[in-house]
Amino acid sequence: MKALGPIPPGFEANPEGRLLIGGWDVEALVAEARGTPLFVYDTRRVADQAARFRAAFPGVALHYAVKANPYGPLLEAMATMVDGFDVASAGELGRVAHLGLPISFAGPGKRDQELETAIRAGITINLESEGEAERALAICAREGLKAKLAVRVNPPFGLKGSGQKMGGLPSQFGIDHDRAPALVRRIVEAGADWRGLHIFAGSQALHADALIDLQRETVVLAAAIAEQAGQAPPEINLGGGFGIPYFAKDDRLDVDAVGTALANTLAERPKILSETKFAIELGRWLVGEAGVYLTRIVDRKESRGRTFLVTDGGLQHQLAATGNFGQLLRRNYPVAIASRFGAESVEEATITGCLCTPLDLLADEAMLPMAEVGDLVAIFCAGAYGLTASPTAFLSQPMAREMLV
Amino acid sequence: MKALGPIPPGFEANPEGRLLIGGWDVEALVAEARGTPLFVYDTRRVADQAARFRAAFPGVALHYAVKANPYGPLLEAMATMVDGFDVASAGELGRVAHLGLPISFAGPGKRDQELETAIRAGITINLESEGEAERALAICAREGLKAKLAVRVNPPFGLKGSGQKMGGLPSQFGIDHDRAPALVRRIVEAGADWRGLHIFAGSQALHADALIDLQRETVVLAAAIAEQAGQAPPEINLGGGFGIPYFAKDDRLDVDAVGTALANTLAERPKILSETKFAIELGRWLVGEAGVYLTRIVDRKESRGRTFLVTDGGLQHQLAATGNFGQLLRRNYPVAIASRFGAESVEEATITGCLCTPLDLLADEAMLPMAEVGDLVAIFCAGAYGLTASPTAFLSQPMAREMLV
Repeated sequence: MKALGPIPPGFEANPEGRLLIGGWDVEALVAEARGTPLFVYDTRRVADQAARFRAAFPGVALHYAVKANPYGPLLEAMATMVDGFDVASAGELGRVAHLGLPISFAGPGKRDQELETAIRAGITINLESEGEAERALAICAREGLKAKLAVRVNPPFGLKGSGQKMGGLPSQFGIDHDRAPALVRRIVEAGADWRGLHIFAGSQALHADALIDLQRETVVLAAAIAEQAGQAPPEINLGGGFGIPYFAKDDRLDVDAVGTALANTLAERPKILSETKFAIELGRWLVGEAGVYLTRIVDRKESRGRTFLVTDGGLQHQLAATGNFGQLLRRNYPVAIASRFGAESVEEATITGCLCTPLDLLADEAMLPMAEVGDLVAIFCAGAYGLTASPTAFLSQPMAREMLV
Repeated sequence: MKALGPIPPGFEANPEGRLLIGGWDVEALVAEARGTPLFVYDTRRVADQAARFRAAFPGVALHYAVKANPYGPLLEAMATMVDGFDVASAGELGRVAHLGLPISFAGPGKRDQELETAIRAGITINLESEGEAERALAICAREGLKAKLAVRVNPPFGLKGSGQKMGGLPSQFGIDHDRAPALVRRIVEAGADWRGLHIFAGSQALHADALIDLQRETVVLAAAIAEQAGQAPPEINLGGGFGIPYFAKDDRLDVDAVGTALANTLAERPKILSETKFAIELGRWLVGEAGVYLTRIVDRKESRGRTFLVTDGGLQHQLAATGNFGQLLRRNYPVAIASRFGAESVEEATITGCLCTPLDLLADEAMLPMAEVGDLVAIFCAGAYGLTASPTAFLSQPMAREMLV
């Protein structure tokens, strides 16, 4: 028997034993969507997370990292909850440009056409290298444009215990911190509108202490860069890195502790940052737990003493839940039989997708209620890095549906 | 410095030093496709592999496993090279139904609608469980149809040293071998057209000995099942499992040795299989080395003593090459600077995609010719499990182009 991840708090069943999402019976949602597999995103849960952030981080701007989930109706709903969008491609820019919020654009490998699109759109470009800076400045000179440019910094420290360490090492992201002051001066001298610094050192952190240390170090570093550049940064994007629990024994991040510590750090910040506005950029933490992936059991079979529940979904829609998206070790996501939610777990079963590959494993040797063909399976924590982070064309399976409630 | 995988034999440069694919200059191919990233598939290489198979396995049918690469023009070309298509979904069936070859359909989680589509199309269904068999038979009874049904068997042995072990264990694939005879009898008694057995125990094998043993065991098992069922199978699909070298020190499979051994095995086969036709189902081995993924360098940067070449491609098109598709250990695929092919390797560099994630690593610490912004990078072995096995919508990047030469 292998443990399942923790179901996010607050999910309940109706009297018929069916999971409710945003107050709606899962079978009603599936009927409305005209079938499975289906991603359902609960607007209320996203709003609740945004409200938690506001309470914990007064005065700090909240940005949404579009890459976590670029579903159109979700972006529209979020436009009323956040202060800005952070995009990672011209494609993402196109998804939020009409929503009227400030936008910044980070990511290595920005093509000239993308840079020009961003400059013309008047959004902030987070520069990843000196070469990219020169390409952006050349476009401005050629086209008679003024760009909003920020400098993304590769810091000399990383996020301890994070899922993905992105600082303190050689990196394709950002400019090494010791070269940042020169680049800031170059941008200012070239006549661009320097917007500040972007310092991002990891993601999926579950321990407040690690984030507290990181944010403190980030503010110190930003001040040092500003001093050396001789320029006060209008804005500092502190990155994000707030994680959510996916697996058994994962902790839940104490955002209030992080917020209190950041308030103290900012209260004591160096003078050169006194007018600086601070932002935190969140994706997974805002939307991850708001999403549920629903898939229906198509077959129930026994093999060599083990029970398999085969569904009409799989890794083509939820790659990360199968443990095949960068994870070193496969562990079970939070999973439940949605049509028998809260029923007693009475048997050990393995839930698979419908693909012809052994990688397509949604829950391995899990204790579950007795489930039959026709029952619905819910994979929780499916709101971030779900459908768009999965190989949807694999084995020419039907596309998953998406719905906002 | 980390080794690169072996470039498939036969790739050469033109006098300008640019890689040729199917005799075409890569820059001409990119111009024809109107940009990068681009997958190019070389028909001649696929035909050469098919010819190698024919020479090594006279009298054995060759099937193409569509899941390896379902690109339409490639499927049309293959229809003249193979004896049948094996599909893993109704979507794949739709891609080859018009090509006039025999088709079989394997895969757990076939929905009722898919079963009915397959029965009406007159293709062979490889049954994965007793439950699926009953659903297929119920559709036949209800609609007055006669189905072509084969039984997929979960054998008590696996492929030694294979990339993915698919036999000898509890599995969602096939029916445990000891229950197969009863299912064969059930199918025959229900009046269906029993087409035989499908026994598939692994993939990506590079050692002939492992495949030779596996095929010998498979024939013995098939005969035993046939004897117990009291039915001679018209066809036996021996599966595939032929691998290609991706990584440094990978061996190249000796298919002639496998073919010679299979001929001996079949010459001595039990009497109940004397009229049986045998097929081998290949995907990766047929098309994998025929594909090259081309992406252009957008940025060149230094970070903490390391050189990064950032491209306009990445894991959104070639997930497996970044080591994030089920691999436990990341190793470099065969990669080259396509616009300086064969030039001396003079520096260590890391090639990344353009995504804002550290997972997006195409070649790590590789010895390469000096490359600049504008140079083309080639990722070899991109013909199988490439674009459709990748999260193409990730970060809303542009779709890769595909081209057959």
